[in-house]
Amino acid sequence: MGPDFRKQNGLVPVIVQSFETGRVLMLAYMNEIAWEKTVETGKAHYWSRSRNKLWMKGEESGNVQLVREIAIDCDSDTILLKVDQVGGAACHTGFESCFYRFLRDGLFEVRGTPVFDPREVYKK
Amino acid sequence: MGPDFRKQNGLVPVIVQSFETGRVLMLAYMNEIAWEKTVETGKAHYWSRSRNKLWMKGEESGNVQLVREIAIDCDSDTILLKVDQVGGAACHTGFESCFYRFLRDGLFEVRGTPVFDPREVYKK
Repeated sequence: MGPDFRKQNGLVPVIVQSFETGRVLMLAYMNEIAWEKTVETGKAHYWSRSRNKLWMKGEESGNVQLVREIAIDCDSDTILLKVDQVGGAACHTGFESCFYRFLRDGLFEVRGTPVFDPREVYKK
Repeated sequence: MGPDFRKQNGLVPVIVQSFETGRVLMLAYMNEIAWEKTVETGKAHYWSRSRNKLWMKGEESGNVQLVREIAIDCDSDTILLKVDQVGGAACHTGFESCFYRFLRDGLFEVRGTPVFDPREVYKK
C-alpha cells in the first residue's frame, strides 16, 4: 500500500505543495526512514542527496513543514505532500517557492521577492 | 539558463499542475529533446522511462497538455509546468490527477471518481 522505494535506489520524489494557496513549493526526496518519520511526526522529513543524510525540513532555519495531506500517485512511486509552510518560505534562497523563475521569451526571469534574507536565517 | 540535464542521467523531473485549479496532476520526466519539443510546440512532451521513448502527453488518448507557464527551481534540476489539461484528466486511470489516493489512518484511500473510462479512451 505504501510508496514503492525499490524503483529509484530507495528514494521517491516528493512534490511539496502549500495546503493553503496550492502553490508548488519544492521537490524533494524521501527514503523509507524519511517517509516513516514524516508520517509519525507530521513534520516533513527528506533524504538529502547532496549531503547524503536524513533531514527534517526547517531543522536549521526553523521553517518546518507541517503535513496536512499526503497523496500517492497511480504507480506508487511519487508522493504529494500538502503542508503548512512555517515562516512562509520553503526555498533556502528566501523565496516562498523554489520555483520563482519563469520562462519568458526564451529566458528565465525571477518573479516575486524573497520572504526572508537567507544570511539572517542560516547565519552563514 | 536552462534545466540541468546532467544531474540525473539526462533527465529532469517535471511537476505538472493544472493552470486553472492549481491541482497537481502528475510527475513526469524530460530529457533535453522533450524539453525542446515542449518549448517549441507548447504541448507537453516527456521521456518515458518505462517505454524508453519520447512521447507527447495525449498522443494516444487525445488528452494533450497545453503549456501555460514554465518555471524552474532554484538549482535548475526540476521543472514546473502549468497546463490546460485537455479532456480534464491527466492520469491513464481516468482520474483528473495521478494523485487520487490519500493517506488516512495508515491506509491510502481513493478520493473522487474517474473523468473517463480508460478502456474507452485507450481501446485496449
